[in-house]
Amino acid sequence: MQIPKLDFSKLDGLVTAVIQDWKTNRVLMVGFMNEEAWAKTLSTGKACFYSRSRNKLWLKGESSGHFLEVKETRTDCDSDTLLLFCEAHGPGVCHEGYESCFFKRLDSTNEFQPVDTKTYNPAEVYSQEQKSK
Amino acid sequence: MQIPKLDFSKLDGLVTAVIQDWKTNRVLMVGFMNEEAWAKTLSTGKACFYSRSRNKLWLKGESSGHFLEVKETRTDCDSDTLLLFCEAHGPGVCHEGYESCFFKRLDSTNEFQPVDTKTYNPAEVYSQEQKSK
Repeated sequence: MQIPKLDFSKLDGLVTAVIQDWKTNRVLMVGFMNEEAWAKTLSTGKACFYSRSRNKLWLKGESSGHFLEVKETRTDCDSDTLLLFCEAHGPGVCHEGYESCFFKRLDSTNEFQPVDTKTYNPAEVYSQEQKSK
Repeated sequence: MQIPKLDFSKLDGLVTAVIQDWKTNRVLMVGFMNEEAWAKTLSTGKACFYSRSRNKLWLKGESSGHFLEVKETRTDCDSDTLLLFCEAHGPGVCHEGYESCFFKRLDSTNEFQPVDTKTYNPAEVYSQEQKSK
């Protein structure tokens, strides 16, 4: 399969990937992909990232089942950023229990405060994962 | 003024900043901010980035007049990414003449193709800038 070219040079082998809900247009999360994660995203149709902290590929949902099914793929003028329109399987993308990772809003006192309602209990998902192992 | 804390450590002093249209929710562009750009964004109410290629602060619109007026500011669970809901002044954010930088879509042959219609002629904006100098 031909791998569409992206510019991985500006960010030490990575591109930024913005995940947007394909129906509501809500931004759900932002991650990074290296060339391998980009190829795996294309071959599986599911968003796959490169985890900088764990230094490995990370197929979003591989533990929780909360996969991001890619419906449309865009890149920007410089081809160094991806915008993926996805169907998010499961109740939420954020590991803290929210639909979106962007649940903190800057308030009038210049502090970030959580403003969204949790859509699931991450402790239960984590617990289920542990039990299934 | 108190500067709300973000985690600049993961990306060598930068955070990713996603710009989303405050009315349509369209993602217009993605840039990076260092601490100085973040402080300037807060103090001016306009999106200010750090240009890696030019190694300097970059108030979006300082040349074209196409400012990004910040209406709402969010951050994610890890506080290492910003999501700014903005009113985009002018006909487009992309320097290539489009409303959004994400005007290229992956087609069925696995190639990125421009799919949006240009909203302005960048040569004219550039020409006007030159004349005003």
